[in-house]
Amino acid sequence: MNGREEERTGFEVAVVVPKRTVNEGDGSCDCVELLVSEFMNAGLIIERVVGLSDEFIKLAAPLEILGRVASDLQIRKPTHIGMDLPFQWDEVEAFVRQPDGSLFSWCERFHCFHHLVYGIVNKNKSFVTLSFDGKEFKWEQGESLLAKLESEGIAKQPFPLHDESKRKQLLRSWALNWLDLTWQPVDEIYLYFGTKIATYFVFLGMYTRWMFFPAVFGLTLQLINFGSWQLRILPIFFICIISWAVLFLQFWKRKNYALLARWPVSNSIRVDSGYTVLDMGQSGLLSDVELVKKLGTDKAKEKEAFQRDEWFGHLLRFRNDAIIILSIICLQLPFELAYAHTYEVLGSDLTKFSLTAVYLFAIQYLTKIGGIVSVKLIKYENNKSTEYMSDSLVYKVFGLYFMQSYIGLFYHALLHRNFTTLRQVLIQRLIVSQVLDNVMENSLPYLKYNYKKYRAVNKKKYEKGSSTGKIQVTSRVEKEYLKPAYSASIGEELEDGLFDDFLELALQFGMAMMFACAFPLAFSFTLLNNITEIRTDALKLLSMLRRPIPRAAATIGAWLNIFQFLIVMSICTNCALLVCLYDREGKWKIEPGLAAILIMEHILLFIKFGFSHFVPEEPAWVTAKRVKSATQAQDMCSKQLLRSISDREKKPK
Amino acid sequence: MNGREEERTGFEVAVVVPKRTVNEGDGSCDCVELLVSEFMNAGLIIERVVGLSDEFIKLAAPLEILGRVASDLQIRKPTHIGMDLPFQWDEVEAFVRQPDGSLFSWCERFHCFHHLVYGIVNKNKSFVTLSFDGKEFKWEQGESLLAKLESEGIAKQPFPLHDESKRKQLLRSWALNWLDLTWQPVDEIYLYFGTKIATYFVFLGMYTRWMFFPAVFGLTLQLINFGSWQLRILPIFFICIISWAVLFLQFWKRKNYALLARWPVSNSIRVDSGYTVLDMGQSGLLSDVELVKKLGTDKAKEKEAFQRDEWFGHLLRFRNDAIIILSIICLQLPFELAYAHTYEVLGSDLTKFSLTAVYLFAIQYLTKIGGIVSVKLIKYENNKSTEYMSDSLVYKVFGLYFMQSYIGLFYHALLHRNFTTLRQVLIQRLIVSQVLDNVMENSLPYLKYNYKKYRAVNKKKYEKGSSTGKIQVTSRVEKEYLKPAYSASIGEELEDGLFDDFLELALQFGMAMMFACAFPLAFSFTLLNNITEIRTDALKLLSMLRRPIPRAAATIGAWLNIFQFLIVMSICTNCALLVCLYDREGKWKIEPGLAAILIMEHILLFIKFGFSHFVPEEPAWVTAKRVKSATQAQDMCSKQLLRSISDREKKPK
Repeated sequence: MNGREEERTGFEVAVVVPKRTVNEGDGSCDCVELLVSEFMNAGLIIERVVGLSDEFIKLAAPLEILGRVASDLQIRKPTHIGMDLPFQWDEVEAFVRQPDGSLFSWCERFHCFHHLVYGIVNKNKSFVTLSFDGKEFKWEQGESLLAKLESEGIAKQPFPLHDESKRKQLLRSWALNWLDLTWQPVDEIYLYFGTKIATYFVFLGMYTRWMFFPAVFGLTLQLINFGSWQLRILPIFFICIISWAVLFLQFWKRKNYALLARWPVSNSIRVDSGYTVLDMGQSGLLSDVELVKKLGTDKAKEKEAFQRDEWFGHLLRFRNDAIIILSIICLQLPFELAYAHTYEVLGSDLTKFSLTAVYLFAIQYLTKIGGIVSVKLIKYENNKSTEYMSDSLVYKVFGLYFMQSYIGLFYHALLHRNFTTLRQVLIQRLIVSQVLDNVMENSLPYLKYNYKKYRAVNKKKYEKGSSTGKIQVTSRVEKEYLKPAYSASIGEELEDGLFDDFLELALQFGMAMMFACAFPLAFSFTLLNNITEIRTDALKLLSMLRRPIPRAAATIGAWLNIFQFLIVMSICTNCALLVCLYDREGKWKIEPGLAAILIMEHILLFIKFGFSHFVPEEPAWVTAKRVKSATQAQDMCSKQLLRSISDREKKPK
Repeated sequence: MNGREEERTGFEVAVVVPKRTVNEGDGSCDCVELLVSEFMNAGLIIERVVGLSDEFIKLAAPLEILGRVASDLQIRKPTHIGMDLPFQWDEVEAFVRQPDGSLFSWCERFHCFHHLVYGIVNKNKSFVTLSFDGKEFKWEQGESLLAKLESEGIAKQPFPLHDESKRKQLLRSWALNWLDLTWQPVDEIYLYFGTKIATYFVFLGMYTRWMFFPAVFGLTLQLINFGSWQLRILPIFFICIISWAVLFLQFWKRKNYALLARWPVSNSIRVDSGYTVLDMGQSGLLSDVELVKKLGTDKAKEKEAFQRDEWFGHLLRFRNDAIIILSIICLQLPFELAYAHTYEVLGSDLTKFSLTAVYLFAIQYLTKIGGIVSVKLIKYENNKSTEYMSDSLVYKVFGLYFMQSYIGLFYHALLHRNFTTLRQVLIQRLIVSQVLDNVMENSLPYLKYNYKKYRAVNKKKYEKGSSTGKIQVTSRVEKEYLKPAYSASIGEELEDGLFDDFLELALQFGMAMMFACAFPLAFSFTLLNNITEIRTDALKLLSMLRRPIPRAAATIGAWLNIFQFLIVMSICTNCALLVCLYDREGKWKIEPGLAAILIMEHILLFIKFGFSHFVPEEPAWVTAKRVKSATQAQDMCSKQLLRSISDREKKPK
């Protein structure tokens, strides 16, 4: 099949080691040389590039090497009958290929590379003495070489490399393709960045496309003067917007299911499939019979242990959530209210401006502290996988941002009924901060990159002593190494840059939805912003940053629940806004109008929660496909399975 | 293994044919004789009992016969590795046995009997002429004999028979075991009645056990005089009750999952597993390869067809729901309000009484009409299985009952603020009607049975001409035949008697919950009623009725959603009640108190909908077991599977 035997990956991963002094007399003991030769022994293809102050070992692998590693790792891959089975190199044909015809997805390839690179251990009976620039250290038996070098500060964590041809193609067809408004080459994004980032862009595209409706509606409300009907048309707008949002999220869920059926991702990636519960590594070691016996004999004990474990986990999580919520309410809320109040009270614009500056400076630190505390707390929770942990982090940190972004607005809107200030703040946030955000997102990495480059070049110049000759960063791999990574602002441990991108979307969605009745034009600004967001985010990922490390999840995770929470909040806040708008004098009397608003609120809440029953999350064709393949798989091997089970059952008797 | 080869079922099914005249000369053509001989050919064990006016053919089957039928039907049964596989008689050992050691559950046995009895077809090349009492008719080629006899009005649908020893044992340990309050022999009930009825009783037991808390709380509120605190303690009661209800339902879901893991039921029974989507009969005929090809070639077309089908189904269902809701609002609501208003206005007790009598008479017919219309509408929906259809019916009919039961109460409580009448009506409904219900449930079948017996005996007497000798119904099978079936009041097509039992629970739950603040004592009455309900329902099923036909579902289906809907409703109504209680003068002013109630309402709604995130529906040990067994099964046959898939993939090239 089109010469698949000779297929190999491009240089996809690089390891960074410091540039050594020239005399390489004792190459046999030098740890870098050893690393390189071990890489070669493992079957990797190597290209060494010497940069200004570092040396880069670029790694590629023949397909067979990756396949053997995947077999060792027992990576579960979807097969042609739809069932996930542990990968076996001998039966390659049984597994579904990627849309571009390659065997492994980018995420699987990176996983294999990672395992391969860290899998080089000392197989000798005793330790080996390694040297680096004269410094000597022991490589213990069974210790990973790369991990050792990292702990000694010699090597740096391997990072993924861009694929130049694919990157350029994506730049053309995606990042710089402004004419296509919301269309994106989804499959290529999936192939190049993996499921998680592709899911984000699909979500962003769909969100933008759906945004056209409220944007046009809002614009109409703004442009046409309905006269005395102006106030009566707002509830209609409100109902339409809420229904729109509910529909949007429900259809997103369907789309996500369709995506999962479209890309050959294994079931273990679906977050709530329960696969991650089981520690695959352990269970793989136990034979089937032992497993069944274990399950059979101390069933009650096991059940009890599970239940204890489950409830203890809930308790921990509940405690952590309580800590976060309490500290938000007791510490952050007064602070935010104090700022909003001072801002309202102050007279001169200059003091207002300086106050805001101080405030902005302060919240930067507060958010960072919040993020650190959250990460620490989460480490005590026994979450099932890193994706669960990152979801837990997202919920906790979003609480912080929610307070920060909206409490001032509520203060202006509900307590002071100061709609002018509210609209001003909204416009300011929606336009100024979003435009600034987009510019910053792209320019900051560029500046960082340039600064790093400048420092590297300068250091080189300093080393060489004189400024003779022009020193430049010429190799592509070094340029990539100098680019900043795709990391989250709240810490790099559990989340990557997607956190910030999703946070931006969620805050913007909340801003537009929660104050829809006070400022219908918000949706138009949001739409404009999102259209640019698609391209600037693409540009950022493709040219400004290092290629991100692929993540396995293929849903938007915690953000879905956050969006749904924002819809519920917006039902309540808009009702409150409507009350304020109708009742300017502050009589607080239940007139028929107010009663109507209350009833409307209840109906909308009912719609919100009842609607999921009408539009099922999983499209019928996905269900049918899933069931078909499951049945098919069972039927294919049911006879053989039955025989082996009944044989096993007969034996002990 | 304990003589399993000779194992056979008791007489579990009976077919009813009319008693013939004595001269049986031409036995070869007589259809009843033919039926009996065909039954014997099929391997069934037969006992013929001649009753007063009918003859009963009792059927039993050796285990092997049932096993062969189950293999033919490809019944999916759970195996020891947890996976469901099509049953095969040769590999009996692989399948999980029931708690009492038998191979098939009652539901599976009945299914096999049904298939066997109706599976007797004319295998000749041409039709056979049958005679019955001189009347002749043709038995066409390939036609089922029993179906033919039924359509000719000769045979009657086979009905399941009680197992006398097990029935007596259950009577002792369950129905008459009043001392155990809420404890029930769950596994025995499952073995005797099947999953659906057992699930009902487990739910009833758990509901009753949980009811102790609000009952004690409500009683305390009633007995102790808190003086001026009386009104302030109500909101606390309210919050506790709502939290209690939310917790109860969430824990019920967990319990239901645990039940599914405890009983060896196949996955196809789990309503939302999606298995029922696929028409097993059809797909079974297509070979695997064809299936994959079909899925492969016109994927887009198939997807489109599925989507069209799905949305058309939604549209139909939406239309039907709209029809039902509109007719409830436009037709039923005015009627109910008119009755409530007239009742409020009327002075004398006598006219009130007669009005109520007329009303009760009228609603009987209205409900019946509603039921018939709903069933007709549902037939136009393309529901996936009968359980989906019955769920759809339950939703529709419950709307009717909801209006009927509560709208009058709302009228008294909210519009007239007439709490005395409200409490009176509540007491009346909770005590009088529930006690009456329990008595009726048991006595009505008994009366019906006696009436039928009386008629049969009378007919016999009339036939014999004189009243010489005492004629009695002596055979047990005839007694059972004369007992009424376990059927629903709204029609027998989609639901059985469980509908009425669940309806009673739901209406009672709604009554207690929705007016909790006006009448906290309601929970105590409910508790008392439920404790008796367990035993009277058991008694009814065991002695008053024919053994019910087992249903495959193992959840409480639509009723879960109805209970959750009632909780949401009760949050709203109790808030309204609290407003009425605090604001006796009808000022309708938002004072701090009222604002507090509104805030409380929102918090409670938030708890209701947020809570499901904290307590997962599937207990961790069930998940772990499920995942373990799935992985195990895959690992057991992964190699063989992979080979066959890759072979298949290689071939076409």
